[in-house]
Amino acid sequence: MGKKMGDQTIAFLNKPRIVGNYSIVGKKEGCGPFKDYFHYILKDDLFGESSFEHAERKMLEQAIGCSIKNAGMNINDVDLIVGGDLLNQIISTSFTARYFDRPFLGIYGACSTMAESLAIGATFVDGKYLNNVVCATGTHFSTAERQYRFPLELGNQRPPTSQWTVTGAGSTVLRLADEGHMITKATLGKVTDYGIKDANNMGAAMAPAAMSTLISHFKDTKTSPDDYDLILTGDLGKLGSEILMDLMEHNGYKLGKNYNDCGQMMYNNNQKTFQGGSGCGCSAAIFNSFILKKLDEGVYKNVLYAATGALLSTLSTQQGDSIPGICHAVVIERDSKVGE
Amino acid sequence: MGKKMGDQTIAFLNKPRIVGNYSIVGKKEGCGPFKDYFHYILKDDLFGESSFEHAERKMLEQAIGCSIKNAGMNINDVDLIVGGDLLNQIISTSFTARYFDRPFLGIYGACSTMAESLAIGATFVDGKYLNNVVCATGTHFSTAERQYRFPLELGNQRPPTSQWTVTGAGSTVLRLADEGHMITKATLGKVTDYGIKDANNMGAAMAPAAMSTLISHFKDTKTSPDDYDLILTGDLGKLGSEILMDLMEHNGYKLGKNYNDCGQMMYNNNQKTFQGGSGCGCSAAIFNSFILKKLDEGVYKNVLYAATGALLSTLSTQQGDSIPGICHAVVIERDSKVGE
Repeated sequence: MGKKMGDQTIAFLNKPRIVGNYSIVGKKEGCGPFKDYFHYILKDDLFGESSFEHAERKMLEQAIGCSIKNAGMNINDVDLIVGGDLLNQIISTSFTARYFDRPFLGIYGACSTMAESLAIGATFVDGKYLNNVVCATGTHFSTAERQYRFPLELGNQRPPTSQWTVTGAGSTVLRLADEGHMITKATLGKVTDYGIKDANNMGAAMAPAAMSTLISHFKDTKTSPDDYDLILTGDLGKLGSEILMDLMEHNGYKLGKNYNDCGQMMYNNNQKTFQGGSGCGCSAAIFNSFILKKLDEGVYKNVLYAATGALLSTLSTQQGDSIPGICHAVVIERDSKVGE
Repeated sequence: MGKKMGDQTIAFLNKPRIVGNYSIVGKKEGCGPFKDYFHYILKDDLFGESSFEHAERKMLEQAIGCSIKNAGMNINDVDLIVGGDLLNQIISTSFTARYFDRPFLGIYGACSTMAESLAIGATFVDGKYLNNVVCATGTHFSTAERQYRFPLELGNQRPPTSQWTVTGAGSTVLRLADEGHMITKATLGKVTDYGIKDANNMGAAMAPAAMSTLISHFKDTKTSPDDYDLILTGDLGKLGSEILMDLMEHNGYKLGKNYNDCGQMMYNNNQKTFQGGSGCGCSAAIFNSFILKKLDEGVYKNVLYAATGALLSTLSTQQGDSIPGICHAVVIERDSKVGE
């Protein structure tokens, strides 16, 4: 049973549990700081497929399939798969869902998709509409580059404000259970637009959305940044994270050492990704590996995971529109029984 | 509070009510059989905008805004807008949501979007997570043609199996209330693929998904086609509807005179649309005008609305993939107090 808190937040009183998770990333991501946390690292980014698009599907298939296995379930136990991706008409997730032959709700929140799927999935589970819900998303550097920017073959130079779309996928299984970290709240984001038009500066476009959702969350739940062991934005990257910290400070909220950003975290400095990682797969892979592991270990007791998305298309950019952003946030609380 | 029924269906025990609705269509649709039912008919398809894409947004904006007004609310009462559209990265709905500045969940179910948004919206309302949820979608013939097929300026010949993407939008407001037709059940669809590869024959690609969801619905709810005053598929068109009736009959279910399809219904025979209408806006506009009006009048007491979507992209077609389909269904029961 749910409860509305303030303007944009809902509380899940039955506290859906995370009972399974899986992360898979590409070769480059597997050379970054979290290489020991990901469940699987591709040897090459085609993953044995004939196209990068098919490789993206295969990553999602493995992430969903293995998260279900890790939850001790089989596919027939799954009541719903909810997810999406960055490709036009979310073909990666739709085609992957076809393989599993279970009910599917397609969503699109750009790089906020992991948090959006957790918010929707938690609602179905918390309200006892469904028992087992899988939340998943993924991206591939090479499919995103050729769809949003240029074919890789052109060898275009990347501007210093750009981010690197993560090759990776993550999947989380939710259920009402006696054990598992809990999704206790979700803050549903508004579309926010500060008029940024540079499609190579996503961090700047998304930072205002992150600010909007974080401030609403703190107001709705009567909490402050200090109440969380970790506040984790999706993929603002280095520049975007700095903009967010500035914007928050101007509004009277100081994001301190407990703040980090998945885009900023994903790669080592010598990996030449400029502002860091981006794409649905970025925070999906880090959330479903490092973050849940640190909750297991008790390093974090509660995490505010706020994934951010830039809601542009190549056409909206060509038509001169600015880039709106959105940010959905979920709170994950540690189950102290896990990892003991 | 919810209840899972069988394999794919959920029952909404608090019965969310339809408290506001609005439909808007293009000039061609306004010359069809439902011209007296739509709330607004465009005088020209650019709707005073500089591009068809901006016209699509403006239709959605009017549909959402007026449905909120029809519900006797103002925008600040809205807890959530849930919707999507056919354009890449669902820019029409995202940009429209920006205008309203309320929480937004973007979804993608191709032409099944209206039913998908009603299923998700009803869950949030039924479980008392949120009070007022707006469900909306729309499409525009001229934006869909140039994205999925050819620029209109080329004047390409249309094959006889093709459908005509409807210029139109629809919006529904849900709330727990004492009055209003009720959403009582939702059957969440599986992605179904019979290997159809002809992107000009969407009806054939989507009919198996409609069959899958309808049969699951009847089994889950222990009902038969005769239990509904109207079984309404989204936009299979004429050919797709015939295929569905055949498929159902082979499985022991006879769809009789209480079956119809929004694609088949949208245009008059002399309007040269071949198999009829398609696009999210097709069933969204008919549902939010004619269907709700006939529920008001008591012509229908219960309606099984099963919207169908084809989950292809231009890229999946170019890479030789087949066209998976999906179908989500919701049951609407008449409130006999309405219209009296």
